[in-house]
Amino acid sequence: MKAYIVTVGDEILIGQVIDTNSAWLATQLNLIGCSIIGKMSVADERKSILEGLYQAFAKADIVLMTGGLGPTKDDITKKVIAEFFGVGMQFSQETYTRLNRYFERLGRTPLESHRLQCYMPTNVELLTNRMGTAPGMWFRHGQNKVLISMPGVPYEMKHLMTEHVLPKLKTSFIAKPIAHRTLLTAGRGESMIAKDLQDLEEELPDFIKLSYLPNLGGVRLRLTGMMDDPRLLNYHLDNYANQIKKQLEGWVFGEGESSLEARLGASLVEKVLTIGTAESCTGGKIAAKIVRVPGASRYYLGSIVAYSNKLKAQKLQVADTTIKQYGAVSEETVKEMVNNALGALGVDIAIAISGIAGPQGGTKDKPVGTVHLAIGTQARIINIQLTLGKDREKNIEYATNYALFKTWQFVNGYA
Amino acid sequence: MKAYIVTVGDEILIGQVIDTNSAWLATQLNLIGCSIIGKMSVADERKSILEGLYQAFAKADIVLMTGGLGPTKDDITKKVIAEFFGVGMQFSQETYTRLNRYFERLGRTPLESHRLQCYMPTNVELLTNRMGTAPGMWFRHGQNKVLISMPGVPYEMKHLMTEHVLPKLKTSFIAKPIAHRTLLTAGRGESMIAKDLQDLEEELPDFIKLSYLPNLGGVRLRLTGMMDDPRLLNYHLDNYANQIKKQLEGWVFGEGESSLEARLGASLVEKVLTIGTAESCTGGKIAAKIVRVPGASRYYLGSIVAYSNKLKAQKLQVADTTIKQYGAVSEETVKEMVNNALGALGVDIAIAISGIAGPQGGTKDKPVGTVHLAIGTQARIINIQLTLGKDREKNIEYATNYALFKTWQFVNGYA
Repeated sequence: MKAYIVTVGDEILIGQVIDTNSAWLATQLNLIGCSIIGKMSVADERKSILEGLYQAFAKADIVLMTGGLGPTKDDITKKVIAEFFGVGMQFSQETYTRLNRYFERLGRTPLESHRLQCYMPTNVELLTNRMGTAPGMWFRHGQNKVLISMPGVPYEMKHLMTEHVLPKLKTSFIAKPIAHRTLLTAGRGESMIAKDLQDLEEELPDFIKLSYLPNLGGVRLRLTGMMDDPRLLNYHLDNYANQIKKQLEGWVFGEGESSLEARLGASLVEKVLTIGTAESCTGGKIAAKIVRVPGASRYYLGSIVAYSNKLKAQKLQVADTTIKQYGAVSEETVKEMVNNALGALGVDIAIAISGIAGPQGGTKDKPVGTVHLAIGTQARIINIQLTLGKDREKNIEYATNYALFKTWQFVNGYA
Repeated sequence: MKAYIVTVGDEILIGQVIDTNSAWLATQLNLIGCSIIGKMSVADERKSILEGLYQAFAKADIVLMTGGLGPTKDDITKKVIAEFFGVGMQFSQETYTRLNRYFERLGRTPLESHRLQCYMPTNVELLTNRMGTAPGMWFRHGQNKVLISMPGVPYEMKHLMTEHVLPKLKTSFIAKPIAHRTLLTAGRGESMIAKDLQDLEEELPDFIKLSYLPNLGGVRLRLTGMMDDPRLLNYHLDNYANQIKKQLEGWVFGEGESSLEARLGASLVEKVLTIGTAESCTGGKIAAKIVRVPGASRYYLGSIVAYSNKLKAQKLQVADTTIKQYGAVSEETVKEMVNNALGALGVDIAIAISGIAGPQGGTKDKPVGTVHLAIGTQARIINIQLTLGKDREKNIEYATNYALFKTWQFVNGYA
C-alpha cells in the first residue's frame, strides 16, 4: 500500500520549523508495509491545500495530512477538506464536551475560537486526541482510499498515529511487508565501497534494493526489501547484510540507529578497557561525543584539552624539544601526548590529536587541514596523518569522527 | 519571486534522514525576497523526479533540487534533468580535471564511477563545489525561469548556495525588498520575553512582523519587514531592534547568524582575557563549542575533563573531604574546580560544571538533571544550580549553552 504525506503550514515553508514529523511517519508506516511515495508541503491557503489533496490521491491510496488544525485564523484545512469531499460542516458536540472538560481541568474557560474549532466535515470519523484540543480525523474516500488529518504538533501527531491510525490502517489494508537493514560504515569513501560491492549489487534480486547514504566520514548502507512472505524476506535481507559485513569487515562498525561512539563504548565495555583523550584541535569534541552515550562513565575517565603549546608541555609533558624540532602538529607530538595521557589519566587507551583546523594558522609545509592522530596503549601506538580541507567546522567534525572510528578499529583488532 | 523545493532521495521518504536542508533554504531565500510556495520530496526514480519538475515549474520560477547527484547507481537526477530539458549529456572535462586534482590532494586516484559522474546535461552552467565531488548545476528554463540542482549533503549544499546560487539569484531576479533583524537571547523563557515585549509588539506597524524562534536554552527574535523603500525599511527595523535590545538588556547576547561561543569569544578578545574549562557531565562539550570559533587560540588555553571522581581529585585537586561531604555534584565541588582550574590551566576565567546527565545515576536528593555550574576569576566566583529533565543529550546541550551564556553575562558585567 502506498501513502503520500501532505504537510500544511507556512511555518515549514518559511523555514521556521524543521519537519521532523515526516521522517517519523515514514518509519512507522514502513513497519506495517506501507511505503511513502512522496511528500509535499503546502501553504495555509485553500488552493494549495486542494491541489495537494488532488495530487496526493492521484498517486496514493492513503493520504496523511499534518498541520492546519489549530484555533488560530490561518488554519483552514478542515473547510478545504469538506470542499474536497463535497460535504458541509457540522458542529461536533462530542468534541465540544471534551474541550470543555479539558479546559476545566486546566482551570480555564474555552474561547470562542475553541468553539468554532468544533465544526467538522460531516463525513468525518473522529480520532480522540488525549494530548491536545484538535481531534484527529479519518475520512473514507471511495471504496479503498482514506484521508487522515492530524495536528502538526509532534507529540499529538505521534499519539494519534500510535493509538488510532496505525491500528486502523493495519486492519483496513492488507499490505506487502517491507523491511530494512542498515549497515554503518566509516573511514571508506562511497565509491570505494561501491567498487567493493559491485559483484554483490549485480546479484541482488529485484525485490531488494541497496542505497548509499553518505555523511561526514561515513556511509550508511541500506538494504530495502519488499515481499509477500516476511520470513523469507528477512532471511534474504540477513543473508545480503551478512555478505556486505564480510566484504567490508573492519569498516562496518554497527547497524541500524547506532552511532560510532555507542559502538566504541560497547567494545570497551566488552573488553573491560578504560579510555581518555588528549586533544588539541578538536578542543574536547572527541570526549564530548564519547560522553553522549548513556553509561559512558564505565569506560571514559577524563581528558586533557591542551590547546596552547604551554599546556601541552605542562599537562601532557610533551618535551619542549619535540615541539621545537617537529612542531605541535606532528607524529612525534601526538605520540608523546598518547604516552603521557595514559599515565596522567590512568587509562588503558588514549587518543591524542593535534592539527590545524583553520581557517588561519597553516604554513607551506603544514597547510590548514593537516591533522595528526595517535591512538595507543602502553604496549602499542598507531598514528595517522589526515589531510583535510579548509573549513574549520568540517575539519573538526571529520577529525573527531575519524578518531572515534580508528579507535573502534584499534580496539577490535582492525588497526 | 517564487521558489519551489524538490528533494530527491529515498532516504527522506523512508524516514532515515530528516530534511533540514529545506528550512535552511527557506530562511536564506526569504532574506533575498524570495518566498517558498511549496516543497516536494520524490523518490530516486525517473517518473517521480520528472513529475516533481513539471509540478514545481507550474507554480514557481525558481526550482531548487537537492540530492541525487552522487557517484553511486541510485543517483539518476542528472539524466532526468537532461530528459526534462530535451537535451543530451556531454562529458565535462573541467569537472574531471577538478576531480583529479581533488583526489591527487588526497593521494588517491578517481574510480570509473567518478569519471561517469562528469557527464552533464549539455545546457548546464556548472557551479564549482569546493566541499565535494559533485558540482552544483544551474539551468536557465525559457526567459525567466531557472532550475538549480545541488547535492543533498548539507554542508555542500550550503556552500553552493552561499557562494553561487544566492548571489546569482540576487542579480537575476528583482524583488520587493525584504529585510530581517535577528536578535539572539538566552537564559530567558519565550513567555517571559513575550511579556517584556508586549507594549512594543502592539506598537509594531503592519509591515513589520516579530517572530519567536526558541531552541535549547535560547530564543531568537526575528523582525521581518517588507517595504518598497529599503532605506526607510532599514531605518524602522533598526529602530525596533534597538528598542528590543534595550528592553532585554543582559539577555540579548548577539545578532544575526552569530553564536553564543562567538559572542563570548569577542568579549574575551575585547577585554584581553583567557579562559579554560573544568568539565564533568558535559564531557568537554563547553570547550569544544568555544574552540569552534576561528581564532579561539587567542583566548582559549585548555581544559581538564575530569569525568571520574579520581581525576577530579588528581587533576583538579578537589579535596576528598569535599566530595565525601557534599558530593561530586555540588556547589562546593564546582567552586573548588574553578579555583584549581585557574591555577592548573593558567587562565583568567574558569568555567566548572558537574551534574547528573542521566538517564541513570540520580538519587532522591539529587535527581537526574541536577547540574552545578560555577564561573570565576581569582577575585570573584558565581555559581548556579540547574534543574533539568531526564534526557541525557538534551541536558548536556542545555547545560553547555547555559554555561556559555552565563559566562558571557559574567564577562560583560550582567552576572
